Amino acid sequence: MLRLGDIVDSLGGQLHGDRGAAIEGLAPLESAGPSQLSFLSNPRYQQQLAASRAGCVIVSPALQEAALARGAAIVADDPYLYYARVTQLWKARRAPAGAGGIHASAVVDPAAHVDPTATIGPLCVVERGARIGAGTVLKSRVTVAEDCIIGARCLLHPGVVIGADGFGFAPRQGEWEKIEQLGAVRIGDDVEIGANTCIDRGALADTLVEDGVKIDNLVQVGHNVRIGRHTAIAGCAGIAGSASIGAYCTIGGSAGILGHLTLADRVHVSSFSLVTRSILKPGHYTGVFPIDENAAWEKNAASLKQLHALRDRVRALEKKS
Amino acid sequence: MLRLGDIVDSLGGQLHGDRGAAIEGLAPLESAGPSQLSFLSNPRYQQQLAASRAGCVIVSPALQEAALARGAAIVADDPYLYYARVTQLWKARRAPAGAGGIHASAVVDPAAHVDPTATIGPLCVVERGARIGAGTVLKSRVTVAEDCIIGARCLLHPGVVIGADGFGFAPRQGEWEKIEQLGAVRIGDDVEIGANTCIDRGALADTLVEDGVKIDNLVQVGHNVRIGRHTAIAGCAGIAGSASIGAYCTIGGSAGILGHLTLADRVHVSSFSLVTRSILKPGHYTGVFPIDENAAWEKNAASLKQLHALRDRVRALEKKS
Amino acid sequence: MLRLGDIVDSLGGQLHGDRGAAIEGLAPLESAGPSQLSFLSNPRYQQQLAASRAGCVIVSPALQEAALARGAAIVADDPYLYYARVTQLWKARRAPAGAGGIHASAVVDPAAHVDPTATIGPLCVVERGARIGAGTVLKSRVTVAEDCIIGARCLLHPGVVIGADGFGFAPRQGEWEKIEQLGAVRIGDDVEIGANTCIDRGALADTLVEDGVKIDNLVQVGHNVRIGRHTAIAGCAGIAGSASIGAYCTIGGSAGILGHLTLADRVHVSSFSLVTRSILKPGHYTGVFPIDENAAWEKNAASLKQLHALRDRVRALEKKS
Repeated sequence: MLRLGDIVDSLGGQLHGDRGAAIEGLAPLESAGPSQLSFLSNPRYQQQLAASRAGCVIVSPALQEAALARGAAIVADDPYLYYARVTQLWKARRAPAGAGGIHASAVVDPAAHVDPTATIGPLCVVERGARIGAGTVLKSRVTVAEDCIIGARCLLHPGVVIGADGFGFAPRQGEWEKIEQLGAVRIGDDVEIGANTCIDRGALADTLVEDGVKIDNLVQVGHNVRIGRHTAIAGCAGIAGSASIGAYCTIGGSAGILGHLTLADRVHVSSFSLVTRSILKPGHYTGVFPIDENAAWEKNAASLKQLHALRDRVRALEKKS
Repeated sequence: MLRLGDIVDSLGGQLHGDRGAAIEGLAPLESAGPSQLSFLSNPRYQQQLAASRAGCVIVSPALQEAALARGAAIVADDPYLYYARVTQLWKARRAPAGAGGIHASAVVDPAAHVDPTATIGPLCVVERGARIGAGTVLKSRVTVAEDCIIGARCLLHPGVVIGADGFGFAPRQGEWEKIEQLGAVRIGDDVEIGANTCIDRGALADTLVEDGVKIDNLVQVGHNVRIGRHTAIAGCAGIAGSASIGAYCTIGGSAGILGHLTLADRVHVSSFSLVTRSILKPGHYTGVFPIDENAAWEKNAASLKQLHALRDRVRALEKKS
Repeated sequence: MLRLGDIVDSLGGQLHGDRGAAIEGLAPLESAGPSQLSFLSNPRYQQQLAASRAGCVIVSPALQEAALARGAAIVADDPYLYYARVTQLWKARRAPAGAGGIHASAVVDPAAHVDPTATIGPLCVVERGARIGAGTVLKSRVTVAEDCIIGARCLLHPGVVIGADGFGFAPRQGEWEKIEQLGAVRIGDDVEIGANTCIDRGALADTLVEDGVKIDNLVQVGHNVRIGRHTAIAGCAGIAGSASIGAYCTIGGSAGILGHLTLADRVHVSSFSLVTRSILKPGHYTGVFPIDENAAWEKNAASLKQLHALRDRVRALEKKS
């Protein structure tokens, strides 16, 4: 339980309402009850505001009047960011961060270096030469392989694999000869990596993940990739080897980036889209086959296989006309 | 080894043949030998029936005559379902289900609740407040995080992660501020979850997987998703946050569903298709670029990037004509 | 550190330069310094050769003259293959292969058979009846389930799951009845399997991965798939049940192959392409929606949903003209 007064004392914002009112939890506008705190970040949902039973609502100055018409409110410049900070407050109350430590079931090589304030969860593996920075948390069943470096305040979710071999083979008469992967992975500060995501070690140089990068679950990051600072990558995306992604990019779910390409800063790739050439201009890029009822799709897909010919037919008609 | 008589005594069906005949295993029609049991569920493969060397074949009443012309048969209304039950009989003989228990190498928090009939396999992690229902089996290396609830008779394959943080961040001047994920995951009864699949905990409310849902390997289920009962999701699919999928749906392999969308009951999404709007009508939906020889694809893909212009050109021709 | 003379003594090739020169590492042409060895495998990058500060460069006979104009060189018929072998030499120096052994934290069933020269890393699980061949290495947190067989000299990266149940259910009035997966997985010699990749056990017969196959991270291989020898599969690909892939194929990243299809030998599937029919002719196949600026994509995608109608309109114009 938190009181509204405690919240604004911690996080700022302007409280209109009873400082002593008890808040038992956070909830979306439509389901929040009288002992819950909610927020309205998107003015499109303003209609839900009047109807909400929330005990208090976080709103922007523009919505202050509408909010006060229904009850208590905290006014903040960025209600969504304010909400994020309330979740942090909540989490800290419920589960105070430990002082670090290595779970007894983890396997940490004596020649690894784990900062004393880092937390290594159950059944993790940290190999020789690896370094885990201050305040970083490895949840359960994470592997950080040989010589890989994780910065400060990172969070690695269960099943993450940092530093498996990159996929490198030289062809030899149709067979494949292993190229040993002699580089490692270097991850900056404040990076979060989702469950079962894999970041491969470099072939010669290192794979690089810069400060503030956020990666979702089940993402594949190939060897020698560079991911620029504060870029976010959604689930199931795949980044092929030696791709270089700029800063402040967003990569949608299940998107892909072919190897050796460069993405400038502030490039946004839609879900399910495959980047096949370097993108040097910031912007929003998409390549997705639109979904349709199956029967309609079948007709259009069949026509698509003749599209080049159709274009020639139109050209012929134009010449005639 | 099972005798044909034992099988029909356990599962019903009408045996035409020697009750005492010994069956050493199950095999597909084309490879089954005289000591093996096979089945024919699809009448299209009836030709294979005559040629099969199987010791006995499970068939529908419609195919009884054809089956008896070649040898022993079990006649059942739904041969495929009957076959499924024979596999269960076989498995039960070969590896009797244990009476539950927690493997010595698993890490189970004292404040987790594991039903005494549940089985927690080697190197699993069950965090505080988690609940594992009656008869549920966690194979090796499964994580069930804090406060997540798994129902009865579920089967979680190796590497599954239940309850990692959802991918939630508020933007702050181009950087990302963590939204702590305060919800959990609630999974119903009779749910099966494939290897290395991830189901994230909710941001505020819980992520929900209803009774009888079957999820394949390497599937990503985002925070606050709801998956309706008896829906099946094939491998590598990705379901973004707050999507609500109805009951009795099927989601194909590597398919995707964007966040906050709703799918009605009995919606079937093809493999590799991305759902970009809510689908409120039951049916079969597809969006896949048809594969072709690379040279043909290149031409058609290039034309596709001019398709809108082509449409305008056709319009112009129509006006002229 | 290796001397140039040691390298050619081990691997052959023709050294032009000082046998005693010390090499401290390998690096790409553009970043290599005077104590590093580099290579030029693609004649397109010949311009980089003159500018490189590398202590020595591996080149083909055709580039010998250009290489010698700038300094020391090793001339080899296939510089990329030679480079692969130098990485192996380097790795062997740095981390001599162990003599095998089972890490104390691994859970190996007494009824599994692990060759004494195999290495079972930390927190792996090897179930009863499984067999691990000579010289094979399971890195950390690998599961090899009941009765699965891994050949000699294989390398399985962290989080790999071999032999989870295939995704098999019989429909029963809209619900799903489990088909127990009674087969196993058989993997040949010299196979490499990437982090968090899953290969399911067969329903009746076994799933087969032949000699020399290389599979990247986060790949899903369904039950009863067969992957022919020396085929390579890139990250995030999904192979549905009972697909049969020939030898010497390459499957691109995030590509898919539907169930029960056959691919001939030497079929190459591009990244992100879905194979929806059997491919019996060797060649290169693609099906990807070309990426574009989002606004342009939106227009073309909308037109695509009318493509079949557009084709009819062109036909009508042709009849008129």
